[in-house]
Amino acid sequence: MRMAELSAESGVPVATVKYYLREGLLPAGERTSPNQARYSAAHVQRLRLIKALTDVGGLPLASVGAVLSAIDDDRTPHETMGVVQEELAGEPPAVSPEAAEWASERLRELAHRHGWKWHGEEDRTLANLIAALATAKELGHEKLADRLDEYFALAMRVAELDVEVVTGLTSFDRIIEAGLVATVLGDRIFTGLRHLAQEFVSRDLLDRAP
Amino acid sequence: MRMAELSAESGVPVATVKYYLREGLLPAGERTSPNQARYSAAHVQRLRLIKALTDVGGLPLASVGAVLSAIDDDRTPHETMGVVQEELAGEPPAVSPEAAEWASERLRELAHRHGWKWHGEEDRTLANLIAALATAKELGHEKLADRLDEYFALAMRVAELDVEVVTGLTSFDRIIEAGLVATVLGDRIFTGLRHLAQEFVSRDLLDRAP
Repeated sequence: MRMAELSAESGVPVATVKYYLREGLLPAGERTSPNQARYSAAHVQRLRLIKALTDVGGLPLASVGAVLSAIDDDRTPHETMGVVQEELAGEPPAVSPEAAEWASERLRELAHRHGWKWHGEEDRTLANLIAALATAKELGHEKLADRLDEYFALAMRVAELDVEVVTGLTSFDRIIEAGLVATVLGDRIFTGLRHLAQEFVSRDLLDRAP
Repeated sequence: MRMAELSAESGVPVATVKYYLREGLLPAGERTSPNQARYSAAHVQRLRLIKALTDVGGLPLASVGAVLSAIDDDRTPHETMGVVQEELAGEPPAVSPEAAEWASERLRELAHRHGWKWHGEEDRTLANLIAALATAKELGHEKLADRLDEYFALAMRVAELDVEVVTGLTSFDRIIEAGLVATVLGDRIFTGLRHLAQEFVSRDLLDRAP
C-alpha cells in the first residue's frame, strides 16, 4: 500500500508517519520509484503499536524507540518484557532518604517472604515501588504497607492471568507483542477496573465511615 | 515555621513553594510582618500531597489544582474520590469508532453481569477503559477481553483492600487524604507489584512457550 493508505489504515497522520520513518521507529517501505514506496501490513501493525505505547501507555518517543529496538533485537520474550517494564517505570521521583530506607526494608521483607530475588534499587520497577511507598510514609499513611502481602498475592493472580493471555500464541513475535499489550494496555485496563470497583465498593461505606 | 523550614521539611524548593502560593495551590501563611509569614504542619502536609500528586501520580498542575479544590470544598469523601479519579484518568486517546464500539459493548456486558451502573462514555474512567480495550482490539489482541470477568473480580478484591485501608480512620479529612493516597500511590504500587509478579511468573514460561 501507499503512504496515504498506510496513514488511513493505522489512523496515524502522514506527517507523523514520515517523522517516525526519519526517526527510525518505522522501517522504510519498499522503494517503487524515486519518490514512492510500498508499505505492508507489518507497517500498519508497527504504527498501531507505536500509537498504543504513546497514546495509551503515555511513553515518550525515546522510550518507544527503546522498546521497539528490544523487540527487533534477538532477545527472548522474557528479556524483552524486562526492557518494556524498565521503560514504563521511568525515572523514580525523589523522596527523603529515611522514607526510602523504610520503604526499601518493607519491600525487602516482602521479597524474602515470597521468595523472589531482590534486584536492589537499580531495578527501576523496584526503585519506583520504593518511591511510591516512601511517599505514602511521608504523608503519614504507612499503614498501606501492612497490606503489602495481600496486595502482592492479588498482583500474582493478575500476573498469572496476564501470562495465560500471552502464552497459547504460536510465535515469539506474537508473544512479545501480546506481552507488551498485556503490560502497557493491561496496566491501564486493570487500573480502570480498579477505579470502577473502588466506586462500587465505597459508595455507601466511605461517606458513613467516621 | 518560616519559609526556609517549610521548604526543608517538605523537600520542596523555596521557589516552588512561592509558585504554589501564587497559584493558590497552597494557602497563604499567617503574616507576622510585611514580608514574613508563619507556616504550620498543615502547610507541610499540603506540600507533600502536591509532591505525591505530581511526582508519583504524574498529574499536571491544573489537575492537582482540581483535586485540591475538591478536597477543600464541602464534598463527601465519595464525591471527592470521583473528582480524583476523573483527573487521574485524563483525556482518553483517540481510537477508531469500530474498535471503540466493540470495546464499549464488551464493557457494557461486564457492567450488566456485575450489577454496576453504566455511566456511559462521558465518565472519563470508562472512556479510558474503552480506549485501552479498543487499542488491544486494533492490535489484534482482542482475546484480552475474554478475561475481563476474571480481571474485574481481582480488581474488586484490590478495591476492597483499598477501602479497608481507608476506613478505620477517624476524620473525613484523613479519609479523603488516605483515599487519595490509596488511589494515586496505590495505582503505582499495585502496578509495580504486578510487574514484579509478571517477572516471577513468566521467567521460565515465556521463553519456552511456542
